[in-house]
Amino acid sequence: MGDYLVRGFKASVMEAGIKKRGGLDLALIFSEREASAAGVFTGNKVKAAPVLVSQENIKRGRARAIIANSGNANACTGDAGLQSARYTVEAVAKELGISTGEVLVASTGVIGAPLNTDVIGKALPELVKGLSAEAVPRVVEAIMTTDSFPKLSLFEGKAGGKSYKVVGMAKGAGMIMPDMATMLCFIITDITVDPIRLNEALVWGVERTFNRISVDGDMSTNDTVFVLANGAAGNGSLSPEEFQGFKTGLAKVMDELSTMIVRDGEGATKFITIRVTGAAAEAEAVRVAKAIAHSPLVKTAFFASDPNLGRLLMAIGNAGIDDLDPANVSVWLEDVQVIEHGGRAAGYREEDGARAMRPPEIEVRVALGRGGAETTVWTCDFSYDYVKINAEYRT
Amino acid sequence: MGDYLVRGFKASVMEAGIKKRGGLDLALIFSEREASAAGVFTGNKVKAAPVLVSQENIKRGRARAIIANSGNANACTGDAGLQSARYTVEAVAKELGISTGEVLVASTGVIGAPLNTDVIGKALPELVKGLSAEAVPRVVEAIMTTDSFPKLSLFEGKAGGKSYKVVGMAKGAGMIMPDMATMLCFIITDITVDPIRLNEALVWGVERTFNRISVDGDMSTNDTVFVLANGAAGNGSLSPEEFQGFKTGLAKVMDELSTMIVRDGEGATKFITIRVTGAAAEAEAVRVAKAIAHSPLVKTAFFASDPNLGRLLMAIGNAGIDDLDPANVSVWLEDVQVIEHGGRAAGYREEDGARAMRPPEIEVRVALGRGGAETTVWTCDFSYDYVKINAEYRT
Repeated sequence: MGDYLVRGFKASVMEAGIKKRGGLDLALIFSEREASAAGVFTGNKVKAAPVLVSQENIKRGRARAIIANSGNANACTGDAGLQSARYTVEAVAKELGISTGEVLVASTGVIGAPLNTDVIGKALPELVKGLSAEAVPRVVEAIMTTDSFPKLSLFEGKAGGKSYKVVGMAKGAGMIMPDMATMLCFIITDITVDPIRLNEALVWGVERTFNRISVDGDMSTNDTVFVLANGAAGNGSLSPEEFQGFKTGLAKVMDELSTMIVRDGEGATKFITIRVTGAAAEAEAVRVAKAIAHSPLVKTAFFASDPNLGRLLMAIGNAGIDDLDPANVSVWLEDVQVIEHGGRAAGYREEDGARAMRPPEIEVRVALGRGGAETTVWTCDFSYDYVKINAEYRT
Repeated sequence: MGDYLVRGFKASVMEAGIKKRGGLDLALIFSEREASAAGVFTGNKVKAAPVLVSQENIKRGRARAIIANSGNANACTGDAGLQSARYTVEAVAKELGISTGEVLVASTGVIGAPLNTDVIGKALPELVKGLSAEAVPRVVEAIMTTDSFPKLSLFEGKAGGKSYKVVGMAKGAGMIMPDMATMLCFIITDITVDPIRLNEALVWGVERTFNRISVDGDMSTNDTVFVLANGAAGNGSLSPEEFQGFKTGLAKVMDELSTMIVRDGEGATKFITIRVTGAAAEAEAVRVAKAIAHSPLVKTAFFASDPNLGRLLMAIGNAGIDDLDPANVSVWLEDVQVIEHGGRAAGYREEDGARAMRPPEIEVRVALGRGGAETTVWTCDFSYDYVKINAEYRT
């Protein structure tokens, strides 16, 4: 795990007793020096208390700590929840001897239950005492809820003659166990970059990665991506090429983490890449790709390895593109063209479609014939286990 | 079935051989006199050939016949499909001795397979010969695909001292067996009403009924509602009150049929009424209600009878209302308030929520606290059988 250590960062994890079933449930990431900070949060209008508090603190563009818990999302908890999140941030700041505004907070777990801050308060001295560089990769263990594997990703780059690292840690796409449904991602890097460009790189990358994955189309109240850049690499100010390299590297880390999340989607048996080309604008391509990715009918067809061209066309037609001309639409399953001119492709044989649908990883390509914009979205299928996991939770 | 006979209307059904497994698959409705006609079609941009042809013919506001087949949707069939739909309309017109523009056409069944017009052409003489008033209620049998029960509804009203009937026939919400996925509804009435007001009444009613139900959020390529009013009741021109009475009666018929469709939703074990009040506008209320109705997480929670307030709030937050203030949101499951001020309601006990979720019919009420607009949407839950039916079809 040595690869995942980043200069100037320490971490600590522990079992504080927030998770009823036990296990690691509290994690702290600490930068020895002030770091540039940026964050992206859920688009859901119902935001959990830690999201509201972190949104406030991230405005400064500087932070030194991330405190995260699993077992309780501190969502739908009203004013009491806000107070709990603020208390946590203050307690961490005090224990670390830094200012309250330098602490970011994230939670994942049960929704609607009060967060026990006594437990957190009691755990903090030990948590801070346990800070070590080696614990960084273990943060992911403390934020996992029902993820079946830890999600870590590394990028190494060079700037100003100095090598730097970008290390990302994530937990599963909410919908793995919905009351515990949150995507959390913490990224640390030792590059020197100012908060404005850090934010620019983060937003650019999230748009192309986390915002392009779909497990079941639902967005959690707690989804959060943080990045801290502490400058320990000692590079000078970034040249345009160096910034571009960092931006790409950061996106690569998020790309790896986000596709891991899809692969770990609950009950998922297939990993599906949906590539939409020939759109009039990128937003249009995204709409079509997401209409396909969100359709329960398409997702169950993938589960059944059924080359169901009718369901694909139906989903495309439901994407809300007013002047879509189906006669220009073509669709491929892997290398097999199944639709041309909005109908069954000439010479298409069902057995070829079935063959293309069989593997655990499938690419669907849609050409809209409207322009030059394109996008890619990643999703998974919809299996018995999806219903099982989501329906049996609690019962 | 005598109740469902309407003056001046005849029908005929037969087994033409379109359905591979056999069974009634062709139906004709015929009005002895010219009738006012109106239609509403799928919002999907990929429209089946019969939809395109009927959209053209309905423009005149007059029609005398509806020809409908099951077993093949004639969708995603390109130019050949359009020719098949046109051929069908022409052949029916010829056989009935009426003009081509007076024939409407609808299809439901497999998508992407060519429609065998030879079979239809051969069947038409016998189909027309079989026309009788008594066969009207049997039309529903010939358009059923996987519906588990026939859907018929009747309204009786009075206008100008004359009694009139409105009879509706429908087949199941697509998603019962998706390649055969279409909602078809044919309504006949002997009231005298001009095409413009007929259309007004139909559009008004569809908006409040068929457009307010959701089985899985997908819209088929073939969804169609037709109404024919042949004036055989002999009422004069409608007074405003009489028109209102007809409009309400027509909506009542569509309300009954559309809720039957939800009850017959594939794998459905619960019938859920989602009432959203306190919206700033009706469209906003509809968005919130549909966000709840379409969320796979909410639907699986209903299947599990799980009073999952976190999932409900998450769905409300995902409805895309930019300035939604969660602090004003309240939610009730039946008579149990589960959410107030955007959090768990004071004094709410999980066992009360669980009790409210147990019955096969559940009302969810959401108060947004933003204004006076409201709406109601009907949906069903998401069960193992949903995945089973949708995944195992073809396999």
